[in-house]
Amino acid sequence: MEIQQEKENYLDLLLDSDIDLTHDEVKNLLNKLSSSEIAHALESSPPKQRKLLFSLLETDIEGDVLADLGEEIQQDLVSNISNDELVEAVKELETDETVDILQNLPEARMNTVLSKMSYRDRKRIEVGLNYPENTAGGLLNTDVISVRPNHTIEVVLNYLRNQDNLPDNTDKIFVVDKEDKYIGELAIGKIITCKPNLIVKEVMQTNIAPISANQNDKEVAIIFERNDIISSAVIDESGKLIGRITVDDVLDVIREDADQNFLGMAGIAEDTFAPPGRAAKSRVFWLSMNLLTAFIASMTINVFQDVLTQIVYLAILMPIVASMGGVAATQTLTIVLRGLTLEQINSSNMRWLLKRELAVSILNGLVLSILVGAVTYLWFDELVLSLLISFALIINLVSSVVAGVFVPLILRKFNQDPAISGSVVVTTVTDVVGFLSFLGLATIFLI
Amino acid sequence: MEIQQEKENYLDLLLDSDIDLTHDEVKNLLNKLSSSEIAHALESSPPKQRKLLFSLLETDIEGDVLADLGEEIQQDLVSNISNDELVEAVKELETDETVDILQNLPEARMNTVLSKMSYRDRKRIEVGLNYPENTAGGLLNTDVISVRPNHTIEVVLNYLRNQDNLPDNTDKIFVVDKEDKYIGELAIGKIITCKPNLIVKEVMQTNIAPISANQNDKEVAIIFERNDIISSAVIDESGKLIGRITVDDVLDVIREDADQNFLGMAGIAEDTFAPPGRAAKSRVFWLSMNLLTAFIASMTINVFQDVLTQIVYLAILMPIVASMGGVAATQTLTIVLRGLTLEQINSSNMRWLLKRELAVSILNGLVLSILVGAVTYLWFDELVLSLLISFALIINLVSSVVAGVFVPLILRKFNQDPAISGSVVVTTVTDVVGFLSFLGLATIFLI
Repeated sequence: MEIQQEKENYLDLLLDSDIDLTHDEVKNLLNKLSSSEIAHALESSPPKQRKLLFSLLETDIEGDVLADLGEEIQQDLVSNISNDELVEAVKELETDETVDILQNLPEARMNTVLSKMSYRDRKRIEVGLNYPENTAGGLLNTDVISVRPNHTIEVVLNYLRNQDNLPDNTDKIFVVDKEDKYIGELAIGKIITCKPNLIVKEVMQTNIAPISANQNDKEVAIIFERNDIISSAVIDESGKLIGRITVDDVLDVIREDADQNFLGMAGIAEDTFAPPGRAAKSRVFWLSMNLLTAFIASMTINVFQDVLTQIVYLAILMPIVASMGGVAATQTLTIVLRGLTLEQINSSNMRWLLKRELAVSILNGLVLSILVGAVTYLWFDELVLSLLISFALIINLVSSVVAGVFVPLILRKFNQDPAISGSVVVTTVTDVVGFLSFLGLATIFLI
Repeated sequence: MEIQQEKENYLDLLLDSDIDLTHDEVKNLLNKLSSSEIAHALESSPPKQRKLLFSLLETDIEGDVLADLGEEIQQDLVSNISNDELVEAVKELETDETVDILQNLPEARMNTVLSKMSYRDRKRIEVGLNYPENTAGGLLNTDVISVRPNHTIEVVLNYLRNQDNLPDNTDKIFVVDKEDKYIGELAIGKIITCKPNLIVKEVMQTNIAPISANQNDKEVAIIFERNDIISSAVIDESGKLIGRITVDDVLDVIREDADQNFLGMAGIAEDTFAPPGRAAKSRVFWLSMNLLTAFIASMTINVFQDVLTQIVYLAILMPIVASMGGVAATQTLTIVLRGLTLEQINSSNMRWLLKRELAVSILNGLVLSILVGAVTYLWFDELVLSLLISFALIINLVSSVVAGVFVPLILRKFNQDPAISGSVVVTTVTDVVGFLSFLGLATIFLI
């Protein structure tokens, strides 16, 4: 643990802006850190400091650092270096890492960079570039070891021995036919422990489906998670083995997906230290949407000008009903979104879920409406007013369930991401229903 | 891909409540699914159907299915089976999986179950039970292969060959001294490709720090992610090798963590198909907190009864300022929470971040206040009113930044999880400031 400890101190030292370091001292510190630690330091730095740090890196580590960075920061830094430097930087990277970087370049620049690469590298990278970023093809590495089904294990073992080293995270190799079509896989552990005179096809596993290059990366993550696998073969449309995906790339998919969900719910799409202009731009859409829905709520209140003029208590209490509905709707929305993401929800259990949510809203609605009614009565000493607010709250909690369940389903039908737009829509519904029910009931029963 | 396809149809068939299946037909379907697919089916079923499905499982697969389930559902189902059945079910599980299940049992039951196990299994599991659930110790497996530094690679290879099979996900073995203290690690790929007459200590890697059993599991996940590793040695306080952690367990940590963050923001802690009573209980605390803050907002409005009675437009427009502040505060809170989670924020870049957020709030504040002012002027034809609401909005957006930045930092100081309580606190601040600034300015300038 000492090594880990010491390194963190280097990192702290590097990130502490109160300590003035000369460029040589910084370079010295950077040399002591791994590429992922440097990437972390860059992600933890404001834009100016980040650019300076990156410019002090040696070219031979630039590629690894770029590969470890989030997409936005990666693009920023790549746009500042020359094509030759970029070609040099990505030389030693894995296929999927290079593809990740090139995919985000303007097309003209991507082609220039590709043309400066060796024929072998270019071919290797074009395999990945053929597939969209969010597919298995975008995650694949071409460093696969494959053998034929009719060889003996001894031949395979000798073949492996003659490699300089096995690729990182190699826990299995793949078995292909003469046309490179995937047949099965062979665990390294098996190769070592089984009898050397056995034939590959007697030992290999064929019950594991390879991943198709067109498959969505989130589906790939689910397959890896459910089956606890470390690497998987990737095949093209014709069944040919074109590469493999390793679990470390899947980990990145899961982390990024979670990050995007988390930020998306608040309408944010930016890195932590994005410059103010970019951050403002990324958030203003969401704020404008909310402004629109706030005006819709105001228009609802506007309908009840008369009753508001007569009874000022209503203005004081009306935000309560709306806000409680908003929270309840967000809870229902969250549980539905999670069920949809994990593919737990289908047409046959949907009805059960809706009924459960209605039961929850009535149970909590009863408890909370008694509480609201009691506090209102104690505060204003008006029995009818306190009954009204209790009843309006129950109406709004039930409507929050309907919104929380159906809004995400409807948004999905129209190919909108319910995780991003869902929350605005459901709170608009509960605001409107909240003001409508409370002020509407007041109009009927109080004047 | 065909195998995958077919299996999904079995799963769909199983989950479709419109098709009536006999118990034998269900058993038949279950036999065709893997343990993780059965776990998924159980997680996608309402409680009653879930219990029935579980009761139809053969004992030899029950353990694997239990290990693949989320904690809440796992506990539920375990509480329904006998101790003998449980001992039988966990027999073939990995150490960390068994520890996971036993850790959640009432202590008396845990001891009974342990006493029914074989001496070997009990010892193995007690290693993991010594450490809290959210530490590296709770994730470790004891199926490690270790060798001595002075043996030749040939001896190691022969030793490995004599194993029946290597444990799942074995990409490296570990090197220990006479007292079992960790010295270094040896990649399987290296063992195969290097010269057999080399000595272990010449080939092993010693620059990789092992994980300490007391380390927090989220830290472990970060180490795995940053270094793209598949398995790591785990040592106890004295440096003794006690087990290893594999990446599939880390994947579960990351997924659960993301899940909890996502649900936590809405104040939910329950599985998708929890029964209504439990779901209502899990959510009522959050709703009650919101009720409290809603009353605080109402009390703020109450102060301005006079001006509200005189100018009804204020009641119509006041939710706008409050709600915009709430959204802006949630955005700032989200970016700070993410920075804290990823350990990107420290005292030296905090100042930059606060300034950036203030700049963002002023930029977006200007744009939005012009919009709000214009719409208000067009709607009510009152110049002073529209200037007031614009100005109040800017005040509230700036205050939303202060709340969004400092509330999570203060909550952390008091050991509260800012991801769970942060959102309630910041929206209370922006509600109060929103009503206070708008109605306060109105009191000064309109009457």
